Amino acid sequence: MASVRIREAQEGDCGDILRLIRELAEYENLSDQVQISEEALRTDGFGENPFYHCMVAESLTAPGEPQGPRVVGFGLYYLIYSTWKGRSVYLEDIYVMPEYRGQGIGSRIIKKVAEVALDKGCCHFRLAVLDWNRRAMDLYKALGAQDLTEMEGWHSFCFEAKAMRDLAGR
Amino acid sequence: MASVRIREAQEGDCGDILRLIRELAEYENLSDQVQISEEALRTDGFGENPFYHCMVAESLTAPGEPQGPRVVGFGLYYLIYSTWKGRSVYLEDIYVMPEYRGQGIGSRIIKKVAEVALDKGCCHFRLAVLDWNRRAMDLYKALGAQDLTEMEGWHSFCFEAKAMRDLAGR
Repeated sequence: MASVRIREAQEGDCGDILRLIRELAEYENLSDQVQISEEALRTDGFGENPFYHCMVAESLTAPGEPQGPRVVGFGLYYLIYSTWKGRSVYLEDIYVMPEYRGQGIGSRIIKKVAEVALDKGCCHFRLAVLDWNRRAMDLYKALGAQDLTEMEGWHSFCFEAKAMRDLAGR
Repeated sequence: MASVRIREAQEGDCGDILRLIRELAEYENLSDQVQISEEALRTDGFGENPFYHCMVAESLTAPGEPQGPRVVGFGLYYLIYSTWKGRSVYLEDIYVMPEYRGQGIGSRIIKKVAEVALDKGCCHFRLAVLDWNRRAMDLYKALGAQDLTEMEGWHSFCFEAKAMRDLAGR
C-alpha cells in the first residue's frame, strides 16, 4: 500500500482536482451539473483573495517504482460566517478515489481542515451530504458531526443562474 | 407606512445587526445558540478581508417625525465556492422585524444580494431554512429557489467546537 500524505493544494494540482470533482459528481449521479473548468479553479483558488482552499491527498511511491506522486483525494473548503458562532469553515466537497478508500484518508483530510480552521479562529465546521450516502453520513457522525437536517429540520435552498438573473432583473 | 431603503451595512450598524440576530434566533426557538458579540461582528465584517457582508433595511422617517432612521431588517451573506459551478453566494441569515413584514422588504434584500453576487461573477445563490418556516420556504420558492434537501436529499452536517478540537487533537 502506497503511503499517502495530506497537503495544501498548489496551483499545479488544479487538473487533478478537476478530475476528482468529475469522479465525485459521477458517484453522486450528478455529472451533468459540473460546469467548472481547470482555468476557473486556478483563477479562483490561487489569486490574491482566493474563493476557496483545498487539501489534497497525494500517493507517494518509493524511488524506482513506476509511478510518482499522484493526487488520489481532495477536500475543498472555504471560510464562512455563522451569525450565532462567528468564524466558521465549510467543507464543500471531499472525495477519495475508490481504490484508496478504507485507509482513513477522508478522516485525515477532515482533521487537517479542522486544524486549519481552528488556527483561523473558527469554532464551527459545516458540510453537506446526500441522504443515500450512508457511508459518508456514518463517517461524519463517527467523527463527531451532527445531522442538522435531521435534528433541527434545516433544508438547503438554491437559486440557479436564471433565477438569480430574474431576481436582479437582468 | 415609513419608506424603507436597502443599503450595505456599515460598521456602526453592528449593534443593530446583533439586536436583529438575537430576535431571529428567538423566532427560530434557538436563542441559546447565539454566542456572537458586537465586537466580533465589527472585527470580522469590516477588516481588510471581511468574513461576511451584510445588507440592512433602514426605515426612513420624514423630518419633524419623532423617530430617525432605524435598522428593521438585515441579510448577512458571504461568497462561497461550488466545485460544480464556481463562484457562489450564501445568504446566512435574513430577518425583517415582525411589524415591517408584508411590505416586500425580505424580497428586496434577496434581490440586492443577487445583484451584488452577479457583479462578482457568481451564478449560484444558496441559503438554508428550517422546515417549519413555511412562510419563508414559500417566499424563496416564489422567488425561484429550489429546495435541494427535498429534491436531491442534501443533509446539513456540523461539527461544533468540541468536535472540532477532538478532530484536531487539541
